[in-house]
Amino acid sequence: MHPHEDSVLRPFYEPRGVAVVGSLKDVRGEAYTSIRNMLHFGFSGNIYPINPGYSEVMGIRAYPTVEDVEGPVDLAMVIVPPPAVPEVIEHCGRKGLRAVIVGTEGFAERGEAGARSQQQLVDVARDHGVRLLGPNTIGLVNTSNGLVTAPYWITYDTIRKGNVAYGSQSGFIGAQGLPLEDRAYPISKMCDFGNKCDLNEADLLEYLVDDPETKVISLHIEAVKEGRRFMDALRQVTARKPVLVFKTGRTEQGATAAASHTGSLAGSAQVCNAALRQAGAITVNTWQEMLDIPKVLAMQPLPSGNRVGVVTATGGVGVAAIDGAVQAGLVIARLSGPTVDRLKSLNPSLGRNPVDLGPTMVVAADPFAATEEAVRAVVDDPNVDCCLLVLPSGIDRWATATVEMFGRLRQRTTKPVSVYIYGTSVSVRDDVARQLDALGVPTYLELETAVRALGVAVEYARSKSRLAG
Amino acid sequence: MHPHEDSVLRPFYEPRGVAVVGSLKDVRGEAYTSIRNMLHFGFSGNIYPINPGYSEVMGIRAYPTVEDVEGPVDLAMVIVPPPAVPEVIEHCGRKGLRAVIVGTEGFAERGEAGARSQQQLVDVARDHGVRLLGPNTIGLVNTSNGLVTAPYWITYDTIRKGNVAYGSQSGFIGAQGLPLEDRAYPISKMCDFGNKCDLNEADLLEYLVDDPETKVISLHIEAVKEGRRFMDALRQVTARKPVLVFKTGRTEQGATAAASHTGSLAGSAQVCNAALRQAGAITVNTWQEMLDIPKVLAMQPLPSGNRVGVVTATGGVGVAAIDGAVQAGLVIARLSGPTVDRLKSLNPSLGRNPVDLGPTMVVAADPFAATEEAVRAVVDDPNVDCCLLVLPSGIDRWATATVEMFGRLRQRTTKPVSVYIYGTSVSVRDDVARQLDALGVPTYLELETAVRALGVAVEYARSKSRLAG
Repeated sequence: MHPHEDSVLRPFYEPRGVAVVGSLKDVRGEAYTSIRNMLHFGFSGNIYPINPGYSEVMGIRAYPTVEDVEGPVDLAMVIVPPPAVPEVIEHCGRKGLRAVIVGTEGFAERGEAGARSQQQLVDVARDHGVRLLGPNTIGLVNTSNGLVTAPYWITYDTIRKGNVAYGSQSGFIGAQGLPLEDRAYPISKMCDFGNKCDLNEADLLEYLVDDPETKVISLHIEAVKEGRRFMDALRQVTARKPVLVFKTGRTEQGATAAASHTGSLAGSAQVCNAALRQAGAITVNTWQEMLDIPKVLAMQPLPSGNRVGVVTATGGVGVAAIDGAVQAGLVIARLSGPTVDRLKSLNPSLGRNPVDLGPTMVVAADPFAATEEAVRAVVDDPNVDCCLLVLPSGIDRWATATVEMFGRLRQRTTKPVSVYIYGTSVSVRDDVARQLDALGVPTYLELETAVRALGVAVEYARSKSRLAG
Repeated sequence: MHPHEDSVLRPFYEPRGVAVVGSLKDVRGEAYTSIRNMLHFGFSGNIYPINPGYSEVMGIRAYPTVEDVEGPVDLAMVIVPPPAVPEVIEHCGRKGLRAVIVGTEGFAERGEAGARSQQQLVDVARDHGVRLLGPNTIGLVNTSNGLVTAPYWITYDTIRKGNVAYGSQSGFIGAQGLPLEDRAYPISKMCDFGNKCDLNEADLLEYLVDDPETKVISLHIEAVKEGRRFMDALRQVTARKPVLVFKTGRTEQGATAAASHTGSLAGSAQVCNAALRQAGAITVNTWQEMLDIPKVLAMQPLPSGNRVGVVTATGGVGVAAIDGAVQAGLVIARLSGPTVDRLKSLNPSLGRNPVDLGPTMVVAADPFAATEEAVRAVVDDPNVDCCLLVLPSGIDRWATATVEMFGRLRQRTTKPVSVYIYGTSVSVRDDVARQLDALGVPTYLELETAVRALGVAVEYARSKSRLAG
């Protein structure tokens, strides 16, 4: 049996066929664009354009209604004007579909009349045994089968397959908003919940807990619906997989704004964050943390303690790293005697933590060999549980040598490592970061995120053993 | 009279001639590289390579000692081994120099013996009427005359001339560490204080208070020397120009690390930040804030209050922006009746703050015209003191249209505006950000920094009127 065969989200993420209902007008039609994106990212199932005005689009046969399709259809992506949505849901139900994404905007996020229209969608769907994602959503991404439903033109070619699942109440966290290719986020699934008239975070968690492609879950939430069910699901998942939560609408004014964005009420910051942590979730504070911190959990082993070793090419950043590490709940490791000796044999100035390699790298015949030996010495130290590396990307052959060095260093995977990389060329720095990520070395473009990532790894390791204990 | 003729930093920043003392070995020699950088960035004064083993380098005549130079020399950049530094300072003093940068490392940052050697430099310098910057410093940047002393190879071609001065205790904040060209920071002066054996932040502030090229000052400080003098200088400057301070070594462990980085003691976080704010400085918390926030103060007028209007292309980010704005001390503006009417004439769904343009941009015939009208409506509102814009960069012709739109919008400069820009292509996004910055519209790549920037503008406006009152 498929591990999550009974999950309501299975037909959403793993449909044999997808009906796309809406405008098929070239380029600007929402259904046209959604179909184009599925073709562009190589969706492995069948695609059925639905629009009575077309017999074919992009070489694919079109149908007047979902009911006219002969083959199996498991999912519909619907972007038609609000008054037309209920009838499309009815058609889907009669065709036997259990999964409909309503991309259409203009429901509860537009006040009371919109909320009433939204309730109508829920009623029709229930009557026909259909589950709804949305409305007001760009839908889903599944890198396993190339499913990318967004009705906005996506201007790049690849989404990196990986094991982080992202869920958000905003289309900003989606293929059309983020530089998924340029940043190479390692993605298994994405989900934009939209207005959450039916399915919500709890359903996503229940699906992802058994998803073999997903190792880490990162959620952006404005407001929790079905609070108790969500917390139960969270507790169940966090015992097995880390869940990060970026809660917005944390301030009273933010919560008001959230109400007019997705038509839901946001809870108070303190209550919400405390409850989330109680259920084993890790709370983060910025989009960048929500996006980037999962990498360390996806790529690295969990630390067995909170003692951090820092190796830095620049002393000033090392000091800021220590500040950040302490604030993230880490303890600055006291290096053992043999480690101090190994470091001093590189350069007599070394031996303290943070290991400031700056002066050594200037005088070393081979700065990469020196860096590598210093990193090995610190990672090998029994007093060190995790390691932060602060290094320049270099340019040209130095950039290549940096990547080669990590090609050798990545063997040391018994303790988690996080890298902050900086440099005078943004494009070279970004390229080196992508290559290190591809090697399985989580690499960050901001010091604070790199440090916080290790803090999160420690926090999850602790919370997991607490939940298991 | 020159406004800061009596400043000890004048010969450092505005030398007629610079002697560069040290290894002139091709490419890897520190003095060679420092000279190369001055040539590369078009230093307008004379350059005198000093090394008894060379008669010429890069087409420039070399001299055995500083005393052998015939022309006027106001500054020496010295990178010779530690034991040789005192004699070079003596030579400089006898030649009549008042300004010496000691780039050499290996002094107080290496413990007691190093501290004794450092004291020797101070003694020799005092005996010969010479002031010292450093040791353990990459020195200075002055975009007015092309002075770039760093003894590390700089791999790009331009540093944007602007009116922000940066001072740091780390060479990380310098031309060889940061992507100054790619990010186009608008720079007047930079200074790496190094170990601060003689000159320190107080001297820089005393020089910059009258520097017509500098409108905003941003400092990274690990430890303050001459605390009372620094605070006096700070109070004097902040009444006329904003000063941002990023204090590291805030934690006990960070302070210990700072001691081994630049050989100085860091103060406690609370005491230090409270004292800094008391003196009118604005404290920031990350390198990114220290680098990027000055833009809003350099490019925009000060706000007359703390009521923020938010115009966003994506509702989810708008909610997070409101959270951030409240945390930054801003109040969410209540839009006036005429503004609500103007917005509703664009789209009936509009009228609330934040102004979520997402749905409007999808249906508008000209999304740029709609965005522009919405921004104008919000900026014109008498209930709005400052404005945050959250917009995608677009790509291709959309990116061009985005820049053109801001070319028109920048006329609205009676209230400060801060822009958070995002997009699916990092390179296009970065390029659009550079173009908007060049138009005088401060543009940020992280939401949190864009929001915090407005908070800082409000904070400075208040502190200035308090100090003036």
